[in-house]
Amino acid sequence: MSNEQRLYTSALIEQMRPAIEAELKSRLAASDGRGLEEFKFMMDYHLGWEGEGAGPEAQGKRIRPLLVLLTAASAGADWEVALPAAASVELIHNFSLIHDDIEDNSPLRRGRRTLWSIWGIPQAVNTGDGMFTLAHLAMAGLAETVTTPVAFAATQVLQQTCLHLTQGQYLDISFETRTDLSLEAYWQMVGGKTAALLAACTQIGALAAQAAPPICEAYRQFGWSLGLAFQAQDDILGIWGDTAITGKSAESDLISGKKSLPVIYGLSRQGPFARRWREGPVSIDEVNDLAHQLELEGALEYTRKRADEQTQLALEALDRARPQGEAGLALHTLALQLIQRKG
Amino acid sequence: MSNEQRLYTSALIEQMRPAIEAELKSRLAASDGRGLEEFKFMMDYHLGWEGEGAGPEAQGKRIRPLLVLLTAASAGADWEVALPAAASVELIHNFSLIHDDIEDNSPLRRGRRTLWSIWGIPQAVNTGDGMFTLAHLAMAGLAETVTTPVAFAATQVLQQTCLHLTQGQYLDISFETRTDLSLEAYWQMVGGKTAALLAACTQIGALAAQAAPPICEAYRQFGWSLGLAFQAQDDILGIWGDTAITGKSAESDLISGKKSLPVIYGLSRQGPFARRWREGPVSIDEVNDLAHQLELEGALEYTRKRADEQTQLALEALDRARPQGEAGLALHTLALQLIQRKG
Repeated sequence: MSNEQRLYTSALIEQMRPAIEAELKSRLAASDGRGLEEFKFMMDYHLGWEGEGAGPEAQGKRIRPLLVLLTAASAGADWEVALPAAASVELIHNFSLIHDDIEDNSPLRRGRRTLWSIWGIPQAVNTGDGMFTLAHLAMAGLAETVTTPVAFAATQVLQQTCLHLTQGQYLDISFETRTDLSLEAYWQMVGGKTAALLAACTQIGALAAQAAPPICEAYRQFGWSLGLAFQAQDDILGIWGDTAITGKSAESDLISGKKSLPVIYGLSRQGPFARRWREGPVSIDEVNDLAHQLELEGALEYTRKRADEQTQLALEALDRARPQGEAGLALHTLALQLIQRKG
Repeated sequence: MSNEQRLYTSALIEQMRPAIEAELKSRLAASDGRGLEEFKFMMDYHLGWEGEGAGPEAQGKRIRPLLVLLTAASAGADWEVALPAAASVELIHNFSLIHDDIEDNSPLRRGRRTLWSIWGIPQAVNTGDGMFTLAHLAMAGLAETVTTPVAFAATQVLQQTCLHLTQGQYLDISFETRTDLSLEAYWQMVGGKTAALLAACTQIGALAAQAAPPICEAYRQFGWSLGLAFQAQDDILGIWGDTAITGKSAESDLISGKKSLPVIYGLSRQGPFARRWREGPVSIDEVNDLAHQLELEGALEYTRKRADEQTQLALEALDRARPQGEAGLALHTLALQLIQRKG
């Protein structure tokens, strides 16, 4: 998620932030030991705490743990009981980023060198595996703050989510060499890569609050649709976003060749956009015209409609979940901002 | 573990083998789905079920799931209740092999091309992650065959084990570029890479049988010492093994530069072996003389003593665990064979 826009905050969120960092740090401590200082340092580096460029910008926005805690509080719990789960989902997110960076051959992440580009692929693969494990151990910590059955249920949701994540990632990697992509395959990929973990955040937050099953399910649906709406909006910004706001080339998805929703829609139209796309890499001089052509063929309107549909579904699900108090308000506001952001 | 020698078997073990394969297959089915056929195929390929060279030789010996089932039966349970755990440890073992092969840049495994060498590093990293997740989901299946608290406890043992595995793997990778290795660091590395998972197999087998905590602990210690003894013996065979038995160059560890226990001992002596080792790669013409030199400096005797100590500890722990019946006998026999094997 982009770091460029200031995320919505509130007094409650400001209370949660240091607690999330403290919980993450205590969970990370399990990786340490004599002779293992570098193993832990690599994790601390990736999480933005250590090494060159460490600091808030390098840490990401911690959106997923905030979703867990806000959901737990909206569902009537003290948010502190959900801290192990909040740390867990952030560690899952970051494990997946460590491996994604290897898989995508990305040299930079959040403006800093990626783990593999400094320590090499072998250590980076293994450090990701270590963080994956720490995430599972963290989730099991709900046995101390809530109950063992809740911890077990949350762990199973997390594991199903991880399976979904790896399935989405499989599709994403395989899409790079495929030309026959369907809109259906796109949603399947995005479901795994983005929506599954957000759905887990809200579902597990509700589980930690020991909410009734229909409430947990409503929160799960809220997170799922939030993820899909977020991704559709992200795809729009990747082609038609304002460079002044995003701080990067707005047309980068056309240059990078990313098979985002508007591009797959455009390819399905088999018009001028599709013909140009199939000819090979797009240069920076062409992007404005090509983005305009894609818009003319209806891809922007199509993607906006999909984003709006999912936004509507997310808000309806959140309504069914009956979020309570200050946390409920913050959850609603944060969700709307994530979906409707301009950069 | 080497595939060259015929593993001990019994009527009970012959009953367990098809049940292990069936359980693994049913657990793997969760990775499948529309558009995900190749994702599942990669897992099936690595497990030796599909693709070129598929068959028993490509599947490995399934030693870890056998340890789980034999322990569960030795501790008084029907071994069938432990099948989810048996599948889980085998999936953890194989996940770690998929990632190890990437980290070691190995083109071959069990005589076949490795996953990454066919599908590339990105898909192989992700397929390993998927198998890691399936392993955790499988362990949670103990909730259906035993109870939720047992499943939760077993899952936590598994997660601690995985942390230990990644710590051992970190050390192993970092050893490649280090020249200051201590014997202590060696045992730490081997504890994580080999002993931790065998300890988990026997501990979780006992947990699945709902054995009393001191019995579970005795089984855990048995698995741990078994792992250390196995590794020390493996290190001996890697330098002084009979090529006729192992079917590979007996001196391969000296040629490959592996920092095994005899080598680290030899380096600590700072004699002729250490001087030659530090000069650079060892050629095939030198290996017999160098192996002899290492023996003269006491490395073979030292390593044998360590293997014998751990064997003794393993057998004492197994004795404390009071294994019962046919399974107890099979567990004892299998363990002795693993430790005392000649190839």
